[in-house]
Amino acid sequence: MPSSIKRFLIGRPLKSNELGEQKLNKTKALAILSSDALSSVAYGPEQILLVLVTVGAAAFWYSLPIAIGVLVLLTALILSYRQIIFAYPHGGGAYVVSKENLGIFPGLVAGGSLLVDYILTVAVSVSAGTDAITSAFPGLHAHNVAIAVIFVVLITTLNLRGVTESASILAYPVYLFVLALFLLIGVGLYRIAAGDVSPALHTPVGTPVAGIGLFLLLRAFASGSSALTGVEAISNAIPNFKEPAPSNAAKTLIAMGALLALLFSGIVYLAYYYGIAPREEVTVVSQIAEQTFGRGFMYFFIQGTTALILILAANTGYSAFPLLAVNLAKDKFIPRMFTIRGDRLGYSNGILILGLLSIALILPFKGRTEHLIPLYAVGVFIPFTLSQTGMMVKWIREKPEGWIAKLIVNTAGAVISFTVTIMFFLTKFGQVWTVLVFLPVILYMFHRIRKHYRAVGEQLRLTPSEPAVPIEGNVILVPVAGLTRVVENSLNYAKSLGAYQVIAVHVSFEREENEQFEQEWKRWQPDVRLVSLYSPYRSIIQPLTKLIDTVQHKASESNYQVTVVIPQFIPKKGWHNVLHNQSSLLIRAHLLYRRNVIVTTVPYHLKK
Amino acid sequence: MPSSIKRFLIGRPLKSNELGEQKLNKTKALAILSSDALSSVAYGPEQILLVLVTVGAAAFWYSLPIAIGVLVLLTALILSYRQIIFAYPHGGGAYVVSKENLGIFPGLVAGGSLLVDYILTVAVSVSAGTDAITSAFPGLHAHNVAIAVIFVVLITTLNLRGVTESASILAYPVYLFVLALFLLIGVGLYRIAAGDVSPALHTPVGTPVAGIGLFLLLRAFASGSSALTGVEAISNAIPNFKEPAPSNAAKTLIAMGALLALLFSGIVYLAYYYGIAPREEVTVVSQIAEQTFGRGFMYFFIQGTTALILILAANTGYSAFPLLAVNLAKDKFIPRMFTIRGDRLGYSNGILILGLLSIALILPFKGRTEHLIPLYAVGVFIPFTLSQTGMMVKWIREKPEGWIAKLIVNTAGAVISFTVTIMFFLTKFGQVWTVLVFLPVILYMFHRIRKHYRAVGEQLRLTPSEPAVPIEGNVILVPVAGLTRVVENSLNYAKSLGAYQVIAVHVSFEREENEQFEQEWKRWQPDVRLVSLYSPYRSIIQPLTKLIDTVQHKASESNYQVTVVIPQFIPKKGWHNVLHNQSSLLIRAHLLYRRNVIVTTVPYHLKK
Repeated sequence: MPSSIKRFLIGRPLKSNELGEQKLNKTKALAILSSDALSSVAYGPEQILLVLVTVGAAAFWYSLPIAIGVLVLLTALILSYRQIIFAYPHGGGAYVVSKENLGIFPGLVAGGSLLVDYILTVAVSVSAGTDAITSAFPGLHAHNVAIAVIFVVLITTLNLRGVTESASILAYPVYLFVLALFLLIGVGLYRIAAGDVSPALHTPVGTPVAGIGLFLLLRAFASGSSALTGVEAISNAIPNFKEPAPSNAAKTLIAMGALLALLFSGIVYLAYYYGIAPREEVTVVSQIAEQTFGRGFMYFFIQGTTALILILAANTGYSAFPLLAVNLAKDKFIPRMFTIRGDRLGYSNGILILGLLSIALILPFKGRTEHLIPLYAVGVFIPFTLSQTGMMVKWIREKPEGWIAKLIVNTAGAVISFTVTIMFFLTKFGQVWTVLVFLPVILYMFHRIRKHYRAVGEQLRLTPSEPAVPIEGNVILVPVAGLTRVVENSLNYAKSLGAYQVIAVHVSFEREENEQFEQEWKRWQPDVRLVSLYSPYRSIIQPLTKLIDTVQHKASESNYQVTVVIPQFIPKKGWHNVLHNQSSLLIRAHLLYRRNVIVTTVPYHLKK
Repeated sequence: MPSSIKRFLIGRPLKSNELGEQKLNKTKALAILSSDALSSVAYGPEQILLVLVTVGAAAFWYSLPIAIGVLVLLTALILSYRQIIFAYPHGGGAYVVSKENLGIFPGLVAGGSLLVDYILTVAVSVSAGTDAITSAFPGLHAHNVAIAVIFVVLITTLNLRGVTESASILAYPVYLFVLALFLLIGVGLYRIAAGDVSPALHTPVGTPVAGIGLFLLLRAFASGSSALTGVEAISNAIPNFKEPAPSNAAKTLIAMGALLALLFSGIVYLAYYYGIAPREEVTVVSQIAEQTFGRGFMYFFIQGTTALILILAANTGYSAFPLLAVNLAKDKFIPRMFTIRGDRLGYSNGILILGLLSIALILPFKGRTEHLIPLYAVGVFIPFTLSQTGMMVKWIREKPEGWIAKLIVNTAGAVISFTVTIMFFLTKFGQVWTVLVFLPVILYMFHRIRKHYRAVGEQLRLTPSEPAVPIEGNVILVPVAGLTRVVENSLNYAKSLGAYQVIAVHVSFEREENEQFEQEWKRWQPDVRLVSLYSPYRSIIQPLTKLIDTVQHKASESNYQVTVVIPQFIPKKGWHNVLHNQSSLLIRAHLLYRRNVIVTTVPYHLKK
């Protein structure tokens, strides 16, 4: 039953050599990998205005030079990541690039930041998208958390089905969103050109503003750069592209950068020209849409696609997290299970863990995760800085043809990213300090896991210098609860093993029962020695363990191995297990984990 | 660690022969077993007035004849249960009495009702007590559910510690409650006698009332008889008494009946004389206390002990439920685990299950379980009726000396109990219909469990007519994941068993890896045959199972037994398990439960 539910939800299992079919072409890849970056346009411009409004509406014209700064940063990032794609065609990403060029520690800082960041991507995007929906349908507002969780479950299921299939579903909303915003910007610009919009709504560029300073401008710039979260997704996911993967990925990256730049500058410019101030309940994009189209079909189309793309932005996390996890797991910094492909060839453990962790973030925050945006942004800019510094080191070290130009591109990117990171810490410390707690915790975890794997590897390695102790013979203990067929079965098996000695062990809670059992035993199995133990504290394991210790001590003197053969009857139906005391399971677990004893389970299947 | 927490909470384990120390003397038994019955006084009289008030305050004088009816019923029940105690000195209770005299089905109806009823006892009493507390401290009202759950956990822990120790703690509040009510009734009667209370507050007995009818009076009588819930507790718990148990239990029962009768009639009379009408927020007892003493120390003393005894009433459930469960489990109607004594010699599984189930009732009802009272009462009167009918049959069948008198007592009890039960169904169907659903479900469950145990018993019995098939030899399969010490260890063990053949099995997910592994194997273990399997769907269990089926088929032809020896390394610390794919566990569970294969686990303990 659970297996057929699984089949229904995620489809039939795929063979390993069906992997190729799941690769992405450029159009689908653009949709699946850029929803995070493009959806940032929905909140990025607003973040700039939110800082400027603290000085006054007259300062809004500064959004134009700040936007230019963000575009420069965007260009540097896109060019830099383009270089990374060709340098690391198997999927670079900040972790690999930082690790290879700067060393293991910076690599882990980048990897750890991103790992947490993808969880934040999912939680923040889904919550924001849910808010957009429940703003449109206020009746649903009380169920915000439930809706967000349902969306996470839905996206997780889609991703477990496999990348291509989810891409087909995801492509339409992303392109509809791009179409909607292009229509909005186009019509808006046309109306400005036609003179429909009063120029009195905004202060002219260059108006002097009291109270403005470098700190405030840098803060606004940092805030605006939260629109750039998500641009690294493509460089992480190169193996998902159709061949030639690197060149396809690079083209997709450029297309995404161009789209992002156009949408971002369009929104910033319209907001400036319309003189829009950020408001508590209505987003900036919503205000622009309302002023351009009125509250008609186009308004709801724009709001609807915005909500949709925010929820789908979560999907970027689902593409990137499992791949990053594979890289970290291959280097033995996180559990090995992340490297296993599921039935549909996706890294299902990574997908599932990401879904669970983001639900675990949504629940305590009751779906109000928006104030995690600065934390989320800083978690992106730390790896941005590291990977571009890594590229700088690479160019200086390898000096390929034209390396000076490449170095300049990455240096610009590194400097700006680093500045943005520092800006976040200086101007929004209250919201980003947690990164200083969780990063060390994660790094320590990486360290401990790696240490464990190394220790295991050493202990499992075959060394000719330490040959195993030979086993000269076997002593077999059979715990028996009564005179039944299950016991008979196990005894027959024990005898068939040609052991040096077979000993039956009976534990009873009352002395009288003990003697009676011994007599019955002598009649039934006169040739098998019975050790009868009385347990005043009604524990089976305690006296059994004591006996095993004694037997083992004696056996080890002559290199004999002790085996405990446990009779276990298996009921026909699962619920029957509740009806039987699971002593066999307890004994087995105790002996395997607490004592060094070989445990054999002889099943006896009940027929009804 | 968990073990030391357990020690702290419930104390050191006790030996089986320390059981005698835990027996109850009469004073303690009265406290521990009568809190349920006595606490009913806190709501019983109110239930009568709540029905009468629907006609008008003039009808309140009817509470006196109705109370006399309840007292007659109480007398019949006490006398009847006294007879049951002597007839069934090993703990009678409705289940045993009904089963032995009326047959298995009526017995199970009684047992099933009581089983559910004890859960209701705990949930209802604790909720009511919590309400009393949060009424006194309104600031706590928002935490009603949490407080109720904490009380259940507390009482469960006390009961896990053992009966005597919890009795010492429980004795004081019960006696304080009795003292408080006696003071209240005494002072109240004195004030009436002294002429302090105006006789104009109540209508005289015999005042004609419009709209009163037999149906209404019967309904009021049924409601009032909810004050009698809990009187059966003593007859269930005879084995808990010190010797001579039956006579001690009978004396305790009479004492409890006398106390209950005095408190009940006192409260009813005062309520009538003071002309008290039931109100939404203030209980009848609280109104009497306020009119008698004013809102001073005595008022809070009475309210406080009332709250306490309501919570402790839950304890009656904890004394009765596990014993009833033992009786049902010995007859194989519920899982065997209920017959096992825990570390402190209490039937800990019954205690734990009762605690969990009552929390499961408190949570969905958000602590407002008061409207379950009619359901609770009907669940008591069904077994009352059955056990007294059972006693009637017993007297008629056995005809001991003086049986006519005994028969009359039980017949009176049976008729009144049956009438009350019918009254509940006629007058409060909306609140008690669920009993018609859950009783059949429970009876079906009893039937299925008994059927399973019988089937198991038959299958396990040794029958000389069907001798076991002898085992001629062994074939051993060893699944191997790599060339490691763990595998070496397991192979050495497999070879030591003198098997006919040892076969290593390797499953790989890629064809190339397969060939490479075969070559390495030949160099390392040239004398052990290796079967190398390719698994396109990345499942280990699937190809392994297929191979085992083939081997088993061949082996069974010559009576050879197939054993799978699974190498398993055991990490040093629990959290390390997360870092390793638990393939061994999965394979073992699959082979044991789905296939009839003997599974041997060879542990390899890591040292760091």
